[in-house]
Amino acid sequence: MTNQTASPPPASVRSGGRAARRTARASALPDHLRPIRPGMEGGTLKPLTQEGMEKIHRAALDALEHIGLADAPPSGIDHLTKAGCILGADGRIRFPRALVEDMLAKANRSVTLFSRDGKHDLELSGNRVHYGTAGAAVHLVDVQGRHYRDSTVQDLHDASRICDKLDNIHFVQRPMVCRDIADNMEMDLNSIYATTSGTTKHIGTSFSEPGFVAPAMEMLHLLAGGEDKWRARPFVSNSNCFVVPPMKFATESCQVMEECIKHGMPVLLLSAGMAGATAPSTIAGAITQAVAECLAGLVYVNAIKPGAPAIFGTWPFGLDLRTGAMTGGSGEQALLTAGCAQMHKFYDLPGGAAAGIADSKLPDMQAGWEQMCSNVMAGLSGLNMVYEAAGMHASLLGFCHESLILGDDLIGQALRCVRGIEVTDETLALDQMAEVCLNGPGHYLGTSQTLGRMQADYVYPALGDRTSPKEWVELGKPDLLHKATARKEQILSERSAARFDPVLDAEIRARFNIHLGT
Amino acid sequence: MTNQTASPPPASVRSGGRAARRTARASALPDHLRPIRPGMEGGTLKPLTQEGMEKIHRAALDALEHIGLADAPPSGIDHLTKAGCILGADGRIRFPRALVEDMLAKANRSVTLFSRDGKHDLELSGNRVHYGTAGAAVHLVDVQGRHYRDSTVQDLHDASRICDKLDNIHFVQRPMVCRDIADNMEMDLNSIYATTSGTTKHIGTSFSEPGFVAPAMEMLHLLAGGEDKWRARPFVSNSNCFVVPPMKFATESCQVMEECIKHGMPVLLLSAGMAGATAPSTIAGAITQAVAECLAGLVYVNAIKPGAPAIFGTWPFGLDLRTGAMTGGSGEQALLTAGCAQMHKFYDLPGGAAAGIADSKLPDMQAGWEQMCSNVMAGLSGLNMVYEAAGMHASLLGFCHESLILGDDLIGQALRCVRGIEVTDETLALDQMAEVCLNGPGHYLGTSQTLGRMQADYVYPALGDRTSPKEWVELGKPDLLHKATARKEQILSERSAARFDPVLDAEIRARFNIHLGT
Repeated sequence: MTNQTASPPPASVRSGGRAARRTARASALPDHLRPIRPGMEGGTLKPLTQEGMEKIHRAALDALEHIGLADAPPSGIDHLTKAGCILGADGRIRFPRALVEDMLAKANRSVTLFSRDGKHDLELSGNRVHYGTAGAAVHLVDVQGRHYRDSTVQDLHDASRICDKLDNIHFVQRPMVCRDIADNMEMDLNSIYATTSGTTKHIGTSFSEPGFVAPAMEMLHLLAGGEDKWRARPFVSNSNCFVVPPMKFATESCQVMEECIKHGMPVLLLSAGMAGATAPSTIAGAITQAVAECLAGLVYVNAIKPGAPAIFGTWPFGLDLRTGAMTGGSGEQALLTAGCAQMHKFYDLPGGAAAGIADSKLPDMQAGWEQMCSNVMAGLSGLNMVYEAAGMHASLLGFCHESLILGDDLIGQALRCVRGIEVTDETLALDQMAEVCLNGPGHYLGTSQTLGRMQADYVYPALGDRTSPKEWVELGKPDLLHKATARKEQILSERSAARFDPVLDAEIRARFNIHLGT
Repeated sequence: MTNQTASPPPASVRSGGRAARRTARASALPDHLRPIRPGMEGGTLKPLTQEGMEKIHRAALDALEHIGLADAPPSGIDHLTKAGCILGADGRIRFPRALVEDMLAKANRSVTLFSRDGKHDLELSGNRVHYGTAGAAVHLVDVQGRHYRDSTVQDLHDASRICDKLDNIHFVQRPMVCRDIADNMEMDLNSIYATTSGTTKHIGTSFSEPGFVAPAMEMLHLLAGGEDKWRARPFVSNSNCFVVPPMKFATESCQVMEECIKHGMPVLLLSAGMAGATAPSTIAGAITQAVAECLAGLVYVNAIKPGAPAIFGTWPFGLDLRTGAMTGGSGEQALLTAGCAQMHKFYDLPGGAAAGIADSKLPDMQAGWEQMCSNVMAGLSGLNMVYEAAGMHASLLGFCHESLILGDDLIGQALRCVRGIEVTDETLALDQMAEVCLNGPGHYLGTSQTLGRMQADYVYPALGDRTSPKEWVELGKPDLLHKATARKEQILSERSAARFDPVLDAEIRARFNIHLGT
């Protein structure tokens, strides 16, 4: 058969240079030569045209000027009207367009999200892409039992410990709620403890009430070794749902935001409208409203403290309009997020949005396609912070440790796509082509150029399977989810390098009611 | 809790307008209003810069001028040297750059791939995207038994029947080999019979030897109702591996190509190099070589018959450089394919490449993320023909009917992303926002605009699960693969509308040794 569609090369071709490859892959690459890293630059995907972005910008300014936002707290009304906003007789705050443009000029253009150990700091600017967890799932997904149960503080801590070991999870925003802690303040404080004690990566968290910020700060100052050290490198940020879409401030959350700014904690200005329910059903309309709401938040933040670190968190979600239920795994969701990423670049603001959400209840094929679709499009569009990127199931209601582990492979692949295609004289490989075709062996296996690229250019999955059917049978047809469970158990059986110094830990436990066992 | 990260809207909000939505979704939309269709325009993803594309173009011209291609058949040498190519003393045909540019000007700018019933014709031009099957898998994947077995002509026929029922599979190129037919000519002829008798959509096939084309034409003329009708609407195209990379013509395949052109059959000029084995290991290098090889094919085709319908089939594949084994599910593969799609647009030629390949052996989470990554990037980059888009596992060695069925949902989602974001006064929804916020109920559920968009804008999965954890438990925790198997059995139990008229069928069976039972 000379004319069949491509199939793999024959075994004889495969063996060329195998010994040389084995030697080359034994030596790991230094960090700066690794094929993928946090902060790779996206931007090759542009679902919105320049004209489209300008229209969205103008519509958002119109919405702020004519509709405005209701329900600002008294302190917010004070800050905003002093800055130039207008309080209407209907109680809504309206934003003159010139004010919004002035505040855009004052806003920060980059934010550093610090890690506790200094090794995993994230620089948010331009098209730099970072992936991590987030959310408020209320269930843990038990994969082997195909079962949903209430999530606990131990589950949250375990998730953080797992994230600490996964190269492609760059930050850990609290992905699930500790439902075994009834008191809201204790829940917030224990969420911080459970995440920070599991990883040294940057942590995101939220507060149920403004009064909970001060005690949290006490804990964070202890962890940092003093308030000055905390303020120099705040390693926890506040995920703040400062609006209740459409176009209303979330009164208490705004007060939380004011507290966080006072204490030097970076704020994620999170607008989470549901397209078709709390935001227009069209993708452009949902983006427009989210942009308007986040611009209002931006004015608010910069009215309090010009240049305070804030992340432009346009997080519109999709609905299944047939049922009115949320859906996060759709193509519409991927477009919502990618379009938002473009608007962040339009303003040159550090931004974030949600991707990687599965509607599927379990880490099955559907979950795989859902998580990849929005994750890769978010990265390609240059989203700085891709939240909810791993582990999220049931349209955000369930979090799954095995899925989180598999998400590391999935996101690694997405990051390879973000890195893109380098076109240089070397990569065009014309000399190599001439050498191989005219003088050489007629193939590129085992050439020094191929070996040199083996680790620097290619991303290999940790658990993803690339065996042939024959090898797969010989290995006993390994099951992907069983492999993920084994990896989870291995990580959780090891002593964590992120755990606190015992003296510090005792000090924290003396001051706070920590629910996790020592 | 006022400040937790977004979670679904409360049940009370969800119920708004449910009755109205139920009424609206009962009426199906006419074809032109459906949210996704074959031939939607991509092009928002551009992994290559304009400068990068120009460099690749120049490098490809250099390769054709200085390296050229070996192993052309005597007839090909004759056609090519008459057109202006130079036959070297080393037996290689070299292509002066002016000749390539002249031939590019003569080449067709669009190709119509006809369907047998006229209802599924594909217009390949610009950024219009179509998805379908392809390949030469040698195994059928038995999902319920977790087992690989030899693929048969019945499996191929069943695949074609299933594709006939899947809206988002736009063409059926032969995805697997009939291993139960020992004779190569009988295999080729039965492959045509098994696919054409299963669907009225466009068929792609290949020929093992040039002498098999004439008998195939006999069958196709019978099916078309005469040679004139065949030539007016050729509903089968030839997938032709006319090169053996690097830079050698596949002698017999070139003779097949010449035969097909003579008989009015469109040709897919397929260059399937393996990056790191039969093509350079770099993405840019592998694309450059594929472009050079397909340009050689283009000159060849247009030297025989100017403007003959040909598809620019740059199909570079990835390797796992650690083992030298093929891998098609990687991020590198997605970039290879998306970069190729951009080169097709650079030349304004109808083109195709491979995407949707899973390395995973089964339709599991890995398969989902692998298939989505390259499929959505292929579509976003505006690839005209996305081959191997559904059903392919084990790096092309296995084909799976259940995966094909699930691929319809997956590709539907990818197509929604290809459609993109419409920005108009209507979709910006500023009036609606003002109405809802200032005078309305404070949400968009059940508004006429939301209902109007419910079917026209949103894509709903057929088998993908969007239930809540509670509903999922009530439904007995349905398994995705079981649902796909049930759907397969349902389709195959129905009488196919694509089957041949009994008189015609008897005529074909009298002339050819048809292995499928009646």
